[in-house]
Amino acid sequence: MAIEPLTSDRSLNEECGIFGVWNVENAAQLTFYGLHALQHRGQEGAGIVSNDHGHLWQERGLGLLSTVFADPEKLQRLHGTAALGHVRYATAGASGVENIQPLMVNFSDMQLALAHNGNLTNAKTLRKQLEAEGAIFQSSSDTEILLHLIRRSPKPTFVEQLKDALNQVRGGFAFLLMTPDAIYAALDPHGYRPFVIGQLPNGSYVATSETAALNAVSAKFIRDVQPGELITLNDEGLKIDHYTNDTTLNIDAMEYVYFARPDSDIYGVNVHEARQRMGERLAQEAPAEADIVIAVPNSSLSAAMGYAKASGLPYEMGLVKNQYIARTFIEPTQSRRERAVRMKLSPIRAVLQGKRVVLVDDSIVRGTTSKYIIQILREAGAKEVHVRIGSPAFKYPTFYGIDMQTSRELLAANRSLAEMRELIGADSLAFLSVDGLKQAINVPNTGKGSGLTAAYFDGHYPSPIYDYEPELADQIAAGTVTFDPEVKPAKGEQ
Amino acid sequence: MAIEPLTSDRSLNEECGIFGVWNVENAAQLTFYGLHALQHRGQEGAGIVSNDHGHLWQERGLGLLSTVFADPEKLQRLHGTAALGHVRYATAGASGVENIQPLMVNFSDMQLALAHNGNLTNAKTLRKQLEAEGAIFQSSSDTEILLHLIRRSPKPTFVEQLKDALNQVRGGFAFLLMTPDAIYAALDPHGYRPFVIGQLPNGSYVATSETAALNAVSAKFIRDVQPGELITLNDEGLKIDHYTNDTTLNIDAMEYVYFARPDSDIYGVNVHEARQRMGERLAQEAPAEADIVIAVPNSSLSAAMGYAKASGLPYEMGLVKNQYIARTFIEPTQSRRERAVRMKLSPIRAVLQGKRVVLVDDSIVRGTTSKYIIQILREAGAKEVHVRIGSPAFKYPTFYGIDMQTSRELLAANRSLAEMRELIGADSLAFLSVDGLKQAINVPNTGKGSGLTAAYFDGHYPSPIYDYEPELADQIAAGTVTFDPEVKPAKGEQ
Amino acid sequence: MAIEPLTSDRSLNEECGIFGVWNVENAAQLTFYGLHALQHRGQEGAGIVSNDHGHLWQERGLGLLSTVFADPEKLQRLHGTAALGHVRYATAGASGVENIQPLMVNFSDMQLALAHNGNLTNAKTLRKQLEAEGAIFQSSSDTEILLHLIRRSPKPTFVEQLKDALNQVRGGFAFLLMTPDAIYAALDPHGYRPFVIGQLPNGSYVATSETAALNAVSAKFIRDVQPGELITLNDEGLKIDHYTNDTTLNIDAMEYVYFARPDSDIYGVNVHEARQRMGERLAQEAPAEADIVIAVPNSSLSAAMGYAKASGLPYEMGLVKNQYIARTFIEPTQSRRERAVRMKLSPIRAVLQGKRVVLVDDSIVRGTTSKYIIQILREAGAKEVHVRIGSPAFKYPTFYGIDMQTSRELLAANRSLAEMRELIGADSLAFLSVDGLKQAINVPNTGKGSGLTAAYFDGHYPSPIYDYEPELADQIAAGTVTFDPEVKPAKGEQ
Amino acid sequence: MAIEPLTSDRSLNEECGIFGVWNVENAAQLTFYGLHALQHRGQEGAGIVSNDHGHLWQERGLGLLSTVFADPEKLQRLHGTAALGHVRYATAGASGVENIQPLMVNFSDMQLALAHNGNLTNAKTLRKQLEAEGAIFQSSSDTEILLHLIRRSPKPTFVEQLKDALNQVRGGFAFLLMTPDAIYAALDPHGYRPFVIGQLPNGSYVATSETAALNAVSAKFIRDVQPGELITLNDEGLKIDHYTNDTTLNIDAMEYVYFARPDSDIYGVNVHEARQRMGERLAQEAPAEADIVIAVPNSSLSAAMGYAKASGLPYEMGLVKNQYIARTFIEPTQSRRERAVRMKLSPIRAVLQGKRVVLVDDSIVRGTTSKYIIQILREAGAKEVHVRIGSPAFKYPTFYGIDMQTSRELLAANRSLAEMRELIGADSLAFLSVDGLKQAINVPNTGKGSGLTAAYFDGHYPSPIYDYEPELADQIAAGTVTFDPEVKPAKGEQ
Repeated sequence: MAIEPLTSDRSLNEECGIFGVWNVENAAQLTFYGLHALQHRGQEGAGIVSNDHGHLWQERGLGLLSTVFADPEKLQRLHGTAALGHVRYATAGASGVENIQPLMVNFSDMQLALAHNGNLTNAKTLRKQLEAEGAIFQSSSDTEILLHLIRRSPKPTFVEQLKDALNQVRGGFAFLLMTPDAIYAALDPHGYRPFVIGQLPNGSYVATSETAALNAVSAKFIRDVQPGELITLNDEGLKIDHYTNDTTLNIDAMEYVYFARPDSDIYGVNVHEARQRMGERLAQEAPAEADIVIAVPNSSLSAAMGYAKASGLPYEMGLVKNQYIARTFIEPTQSRRERAVRMKLSPIRAVLQGKRVVLVDDSIVRGTTSKYIIQILREAGAKEVHVRIGSPAFKYPTFYGIDMQTSRELLAANRSLAEMRELIGADSLAFLSVDGLKQAINVPNTGKGSGLTAAYFDGHYPSPIYDYEPELADQIAAGTVTFDPEVKPAKGEQ
Repeated sequence: MAIEPLTSDRSLNEECGIFGVWNVENAAQLTFYGLHALQHRGQEGAGIVSNDHGHLWQERGLGLLSTVFADPEKLQRLHGTAALGHVRYATAGASGVENIQPLMVNFSDMQLALAHNGNLTNAKTLRKQLEAEGAIFQSSSDTEILLHLIRRSPKPTFVEQLKDALNQVRGGFAFLLMTPDAIYAALDPHGYRPFVIGQLPNGSYVATSETAALNAVSAKFIRDVQPGELITLNDEGLKIDHYTNDTTLNIDAMEYVYFARPDSDIYGVNVHEARQRMGERLAQEAPAEADIVIAVPNSSLSAAMGYAKASGLPYEMGLVKNQYIARTFIEPTQSRRERAVRMKLSPIRAVLQGKRVVLVDDSIVRGTTSKYIIQILREAGAKEVHVRIGSPAFKYPTFYGIDMQTSRELLAANRSLAEMRELIGADSLAFLSVDGLKQAINVPNTGKGSGLTAAYFDGHYPSPIYDYEPELADQIAAGTVTFDPEVKPAKGEQ
Repeated sequence: MAIEPLTSDRSLNEECGIFGVWNVENAAQLTFYGLHALQHRGQEGAGIVSNDHGHLWQERGLGLLSTVFADPEKLQRLHGTAALGHVRYATAGASGVENIQPLMVNFSDMQLALAHNGNLTNAKTLRKQLEAEGAIFQSSSDTEILLHLIRRSPKPTFVEQLKDALNQVRGGFAFLLMTPDAIYAALDPHGYRPFVIGQLPNGSYVATSETAALNAVSAKFIRDVQPGELITLNDEGLKIDHYTNDTTLNIDAMEYVYFARPDSDIYGVNVHEARQRMGERLAQEAPAEADIVIAVPNSSLSAAMGYAKASGLPYEMGLVKNQYIARTFIEPTQSRRERAVRMKLSPIRAVLQGKRVVLVDDSIVRGTTSKYIIQILREAGAKEVHVRIGSPAFKYPTFYGIDMQTSRELLAANRSLAEMRELIGADSLAFLSVDGLKQAINVPNTGKGSGLTAAYFDGHYPSPIYDYEPELADQIAAGTVTFDPEVKPAKGEQ
Repeated sequence: MAIEPLTSDRSLNEECGIFGVWNVENAAQLTFYGLHALQHRGQEGAGIVSNDHGHLWQERGLGLLSTVFADPEKLQRLHGTAALGHVRYATAGASGVENIQPLMVNFSDMQLALAHNGNLTNAKTLRKQLEAEGAIFQSSSDTEILLHLIRRSPKPTFVEQLKDALNQVRGGFAFLLMTPDAIYAALDPHGYRPFVIGQLPNGSYVATSETAALNAVSAKFIRDVQPGELITLNDEGLKIDHYTNDTTLNIDAMEYVYFARPDSDIYGVNVHEARQRMGERLAQEAPAEADIVIAVPNSSLSAAMGYAKASGLPYEMGLVKNQYIARTFIEPTQSRRERAVRMKLSPIRAVLQGKRVVLVDDSIVRGTTSKYIIQILREAGAKEVHVRIGSPAFKYPTFYGIDMQTSRELLAANRSLAEMRELIGADSLAFLSVDGLKQAINVPNTGKGSGLTAAYFDGHYPSPIYDYEPELADQIAAGTVTFDPEVKPAKGEQ
């Protein structure tokens, strides 16, 4: 009998949310509220570093924000008018507190804090090079690499050292750094991760992962950070600069499909509305003979509402989500996953009894959750269950900051549509097309890049994948996986 | 600066959920799952007593089920094939662990466990009488009174003593008792509280507060416990008896309006569907010139869907509920309640911008939450906000197991509709009528009683209120509060 | 592999320490200091009840005082100028927090707190009688019985009810009760337990188990509470009364031998000096051909110093006690007790090498600890180990407040001296004689009773043992166990 | 009102205890037992790293060993047959968990763990140099410096890199390092810190700070690690090597006086016996007209026994030490230190009443503790109190691993003997002479160095103090502080 956390049974995991603010009273408190709105981006660790007249204070710990800051003195100790915060999803084997961000380093000449959302695709290579030169890494996270690159840069100023370092790393990253004098925000050259700037009522600036966090602190949205930018928040306000001009825009499609909050806007597109349009397109692409449309709460509510609207079928509440998900023993006679699903979702028999049901979900990863939901619906009297997925089938992993299962675990990577339908026990099954997805999201065209990263579905990566190439060697050889060349090779890569 | 729990900011509080099962492997584990589905009925304490071949084991503690049973050994220590569980809302001043149920008593001749959902209206009187006779009370809860009445009954058998005791208490109660040999379930003579019997796949029986808990353990619904019944679950199965025939049916209307889960059925009426009908009636009674209908998630989703359907206006997602509500400091410059609302609910600007919004909520208690929600909607661009409440205005407290604020705190008890609208800042405000509520719920007529207790709204109580009469002395004198005579006076009451 | 607490490996366990004070600022704080000096009398639970202008506040918990009051707010919540405190040894199966004292009861007409050091020998009988009359017991401790007896007494005043109750209980007891108006201290008619009165610098009075606790709060010793007395501490000062005149003085010999602190005086006899005299007598009764005398630190330091002095042999430090005893895993390949001894005691090889050692210990219960100590000494080079015990051999259990093992577990109850020596592996073994013990302690003769209870050694009990008679039925039949008649039979006992 | 830990009120603090073992079943468990015997060397943090077939596992935390390993799973997770452990005293401002040792680093090519007892006197200089070369330090402890020096060494093998690094650091150090293949033990060139090798019954080797830890794991003493040695423990057994031949022997005198356990031997001298001889010499140098000799338990028991023996006065127990020292509030009306002393030490009035007392203590740092003890003795009736200190007066700080107060806080640095006597309130006061100390300890002469570091008392340091020179600039100028030249200057120092 094992205890299993039922709270984080998502199969895809965002690797973080970040928040920084310069020049406001109780900056750590404000950062707490901001992180609270980003908790969905990481539940396994949280930390805040504050800046009190140039001295940095740090608190961090494992677990939810409310666990880490359960002792009220922790927030109170974080004096100062600037702060950096981070919520984190911890990958297996990297769950030590030393990996919880923001990382903070005390040099003899300065203090530095660093928070990272994303994943570096050349981390392993860089780490080896740095170690060969004598560098010692404390954490197992790739974030620490940036610190070493900065400290080893021969450039004369901190900003130049930082730009130097940013030009050496590859992959997806939204970085927030804080020195005694400023906060720096930098986005990767492809814009893989969402990153926005807001302004508080007092005129000060905030940089964070999602606009939802701006709302949480009553900040108004100013602009999206653009690929390749390096933005400074300091006593003089906001300064927009860039470390490279060789950029594209390829925001991760999964932010719209699954991760970002419905109340966030990314590059001007509201996430709820994008999902609603996915549902509408899905209804057009894959209609169903049915009586009602229901969602898997809460993640697919928007898509289900869109499906219902476009199909003309009534939108109904067929499943209720328990608001109190407890860790629990799972008795050995039932699978952990089945119990998790049953503790989380309950059917409304009065709604389902005798009905032909369209079940809209946002995605299928391994398929087991879908199987148990369909069982639950049938036990509650549903006559037919037609599963409609608001995104295309997942076939490929990505490496820009979302902890996607390897393709071995992806149901769609290994099965035909008919096999999948059979396996989950649905009467019919359909996914949104890749084109449908792109049109539903419709990121404004900036001229460079396709706007979206849809590699999950079509295997086409907007940049080389560096250290991860060996993992996809077979698919690369077979030509099912392809990638664009780098926009600007790093030193020594040419 | 104070730390405040933002998790339990409801203004009305259910006083408990109960669950009992006889004859199943790992009964405590099953009870844990059952209680998990009842967590909404009480978040401040939880406990389970198991029965291992006649020996009772107890574990209980303060907080959510997941907190109380965080140590996996606690559940494992609860050996046995029968169990009783309880989740509890602790009223102020009664938060000690000694009040957490199930209460368990070790007599020289037997062990006894007791779990209670409800509130006894003659508790104070009975307690004084018992103390005058030498009884010592350990807890401050009125539940303990039943134990003393049982032990002091001159009747020869336990069942007769229990019936004797049940006939002396007044008010609302669903009791579960466990002896080494059986579980007993008893409902008050007016059926104030929901209470159902289910059957497990192995043929054994379960008694619990809501059908949602039956679903959680894969039990099928057998019947509602009827007012005045005393039901025995033991090795011989289920035995239905009664301790009185003088009964009415007056289920608490607030179970349908607010407390029970949407996936539960009470006396055959599904709660979600009842709420949907409340929304539909409300749309008929109080239409609005508007563009969209939105709900306050999650409690008023059903009513909002009903309103949208009946009004023909589009049902939209205007507010998102944060799934991770953290305890936090509240800075002194903002009200605790405002911060709580802002951390819990976020607007979707893209949906609200420039819209005339119908905001459907299930109830208004003090009105401050409504005020902050309306502010949030206006900040996000809503042009007009028309508030529609899926239940009539609260004007009177009740005493049958829901911790209703005294009438001094009830907004509707002291203000006109216009004043309320002004105070919350809505463009218009309307409540469902009492008749509308009754017709929307439509509890099957059993011949005795009106089916519902609607005293909250009309001041008419289905039975005397005993120890609470002094609280309402003015209204009784003024004739605004009235009550039916008792169906059967207790010994010495005639 | 099991985790075992190595801290409480004593084989005899005192059942409590109590402390009360009336009329001093921060009474709970002072009580904390007093209890701190009594921690050796009970390590498994602690509690304090304070009295703030007639309102009683309670805090209690499992574990050491420092654990229970780890949160500084707990002491701060205990407002008021009077307080009652208790440290507790929890017997098996009675470890719930509901058994932690002081017990506190909220009657409709008054609050009452109660702390007890001792054991009632007719508890089972009284409990059965009370339950037959409808009483409900919350705790499994016999302390609660007194509360029921008080509340059921037909006498008109609280003091008379209390006297009435005190005359019904049998066995050993030092009781402290607190009402809104006073603290009451009562000692059993045989004076089994130590109990003293002291006076603070401000003139207020303190009642507690040992004079060491008086020193801890800078109170001066006033007098020993005498058997049968009922003393009141209130705003008028100290009032000495009695509930019975039929008394003897038979203080428990184990207080001098083992339990009380060396810096305490009991009936005018300093414990350290009494132990030193035990060692001196032992040297006379059982000399040894040896080079050095060493103690088992810390409990037998006094006796060893006495033995050395009287024998003329050098007193040496052969064993060092670790001040940090940790709970730990015990690997399965070694006995828990052996590891416990080895983690607690270390030999000084430089002292022991090649020496003939007299090892003075205060007692032998099961003998296993002695066996491991002797092994340790031999491994460190001791040539001979002559064990000398500062008390007679334990052969009989007692029932007045010390949790003595049943005679089945007592080494001396079942073995000859030669067998014991063999079993523990000593070169020679001797115990102090019963006469030697009595003369070494030499409690002042008050005319009634022998002064001491030495039933552990000679089987003669100063009063009947009531509910425990069946346990010793064989020895009673054989005449090896005898007891004096009760000084004054209770109602119905004649 | 502040909460203060009363447990660690020592004014001098050892900076650690270390333990390593290669090739034994359950190596982490054995290490736990070894560290348990070294807990007196550091109570503020503990950690163990185990080696499971070349993979290192780490557990560490703040507090006592029993706190850090309270969860039994922690030890169980430390699989493997080799382990390294550390207990730590945390200096102010360095209390984060990242400073708790053993430090562990995961390089791409190997894992490395490091535990350190001592203090590097050129840490600041080295750290600055390393940072200038791009090194990033995670901890604020100087231990991490060794890691950077190793990794930056151009030498081809790990052992050569390690020797290279050891030759660059200055000050006091006993290092234990563990790689997948071996444990390495290295002692500084002056032998400032104790360090011993033992052998387990299975033939495997152990390296640790004190012989007491060897006894705790039933290992027999093999040899002291000698200054300048580098010893390898691996599958081939023990290999003794050295990284420098330029050494002296100057073991820190405070180990004998105060820190080491009485049951430990250092360079063949038993600590208890050395202290006893200090007491004997003290009796000869400073006799007293008195009735009894008493110790301050437990640290000065040995010296007091020696004083009593040499003076012919009776050795008595005048003070009892409480075994349960709790953290507590200290009320504002009394000094924290006074309360700490009173909660820790209680007088035996029966022993002290009317007596002229020789109070033997091991040292005086600030003098306040002595003042309160003397008050306690006088309150308990002592007629005269003659204080005799078993070591010379502390006048100078040292920098080799004991956290000595700066000379500003040292009573003896700033006062005459008469002033000190007056301040603590003694009838007479005397210290042991420096010569007396040296002769009492009598470390075997190895030809190089004086055997002892007595700089605390005479201001003569056996080596330069590097980064600490500015602190003692005045005394160096005045010639009261002097130091020997380094035995072998490091690169660049010549």
